[in-house]
Amino acid sequence: MKLMDLYAKMKSDLNTIERELERRVTSDHALLSEASVHLLKAGGKRIRPVFVLLAGKYGDYRLDVLQRVAVTLELIHMASLVHDDVIDDADMRRGQPTVKAKWDNRIAMYTGDYIYANALAIVTELNNPEIHQTLSKAILEMCIGEMEQVRDFFNTTQTVRNYLLRIRRKTALLIAVSCQLGALASGSKRSHAFALYRFGYNVGMAFQIRDDLLDLCGTEKQLGKPPGSDIRQGNITLPVLLALRDPLLRGELQREIDGIREAGAQADCSRALALIRSSRGIPDSEQMAARYIAKAIDALVKLPDIPAKKNLRDIANFVAKRNY
Amino acid sequence: MKLMDLYAKMKSDLNTIERELERRVTSDHALLSEASVHLLKAGGKRIRPVFVLLAGKYGDYRLDVLQRVAVTLELIHMASLVHDDVIDDADMRRGQPTVKAKWDNRIAMYTGDYIYANALAIVTELNNPEIHQTLSKAILEMCIGEMEQVRDFFNTTQTVRNYLLRIRRKTALLIAVSCQLGALASGSKRSHAFALYRFGYNVGMAFQIRDDLLDLCGTEKQLGKPPGSDIRQGNITLPVLLALRDPLLRGELQREIDGIREAGAQADCSRALALIRSSRGIPDSEQMAARYIAKAIDALVKLPDIPAKKNLRDIANFVAKRNY
Repeated sequence: MKLMDLYAKMKSDLNTIERELERRVTSDHALLSEASVHLLKAGGKRIRPVFVLLAGKYGDYRLDVLQRVAVTLELIHMASLVHDDVIDDADMRRGQPTVKAKWDNRIAMYTGDYIYANALAIVTELNNPEIHQTLSKAILEMCIGEMEQVRDFFNTTQTVRNYLLRIRRKTALLIAVSCQLGALASGSKRSHAFALYRFGYNVGMAFQIRDDLLDLCGTEKQLGKPPGSDIRQGNITLPVLLALRDPLLRGELQREIDGIREAGAQADCSRALALIRSSRGIPDSEQMAARYIAKAIDALVKLPDIPAKKNLRDIANFVAKRNY
Repeated sequence: MKLMDLYAKMKSDLNTIERELERRVTSDHALLSEASVHLLKAGGKRIRPVFVLLAGKYGDYRLDVLQRVAVTLELIHMASLVHDDVIDDADMRRGQPTVKAKWDNRIAMYTGDYIYANALAIVTELNNPEIHQTLSKAILEMCIGEMEQVRDFFNTTQTVRNYLLRIRRKTALLIAVSCQLGALASGSKRSHAFALYRFGYNVGMAFQIRDDLLDLCGTEKQLGKPPGSDIRQGNITLPVLLALRDPLLRGELQREIDGIREAGAQADCSRALALIRSSRGIPDSEQMAARYIAKAIDALVKLPDIPAKKNLRDIANFVAKRNY
């Protein structure tokens, strides 16, 4: 099944979630609502809600419960994006001006805070302390991951392990928890919830590696923003770390990165991008992403054969190849 | 009883909370821990923990439960301060450099996020959905209040009612909830928890009005930062709104405020401060604060006569007069 067909099949439930997302961030405060809705309309793949719904199929599928979990997770993701844009000084995301660019940093920071608070208010409606605990721990790790990213800016001597730990916190955990909480909220077996967590974790790792690859190799049209935004802000990702291992490239690439650091946000990174694209960093990172996808699919083995299983496998395979 | 004596009496329990505050914000991430502990060490009156503990006396006083509520509330307050400092571009708070000034805005924003996330992780340990719900709603209102403050910057035509609604969200609700949750967490009667909420709400309103008065009338020594920081950033507080009602002052004060707006962060606000200090805005605001204190004390009437009641009354009377 193609990904579009899967979204079509889930359309009615995803529409419910879309409506809820909008309803939840709408307040009597005009500017907050406007900024939040602007953010919602910018789209996104809603991958976390999709995982919540599919994981929910392993238990008692109740949309009124699952939509709360899904909306909470998508809002947490959105809030972290708004705060990222403040940090990154980003003007565009997904082809749309960021909240920060359209309004200002203050509005962006408080919009993020407001969306976080909304997310947490929704999940408390579930009266399920285990869900709150799991979620709040994941958010805590996510915050540490964000901070690690700032700490590691322009650090070209960091290890691959360091990179993997950071994307685990920054991205993979929240996707893992999306799968896990969809299962828990539906009262599925603990062993199933754990398998789904493992699935989500590995998909999340592959997803972020692909994201980092796309930022280096994609076109402005594919990305909705110019390529190289990571390297311009100093975010040293896996392909860069691997490219730096090549003794023939290392010297020049390091000098390019030093130059970008000095030039700041307006730096020309075309030479650095060309060097990285010509390196083993690209195929080796692709292979690493593929290995995470294989592990994700492996985690599904112990789950009962229901249609959702095939859907999850299809998404994993899509993540392995996605180019937008 | 003097306030210092009350703190002395509660010293052992407050020390437990102090230790917990530090333990909770310490992570294996050095910079996050450092920034958070820096913030803790800058002090504060710990008024929210004091209210939690005193409210807890109206039920089954268990420190292991109450300290979690107290630590959560103090951390939420701290997180909002760090984010305020980003917004206000403040370099000093309580006589200490702010996180934003000592590190940078990015660190300050993520430190705030991290402290928020910590606070929420702690409260989930209580397994009490009602507490989570009450708290998350209060945080949501607080975020809206913060945003309203940004929206209302330099708006000298806002009504007093608008100001009161804003400080209700920004300050009073969290103090009200501190009292309420201390009571709920101890299993006290609902009517007692509600009376304590009313007490906290009114103390909180008076507290913020006094805070706003101090920023206009205090000395740099009392404040730990230069006076007039509110007006410099455009935060139009009650005494200013009331001063603007005086037809003899209005024209000049409005021109001064316009000048401050144009000059930005380095503006000289000494003339504006002198005008406000000479106006009815000061005694009228003091009277309004006193009225909230009277309402707070009135809310205590229905509560049983235990020693905590006198302590709460003493704190209310202290808030009415505090000059630091």
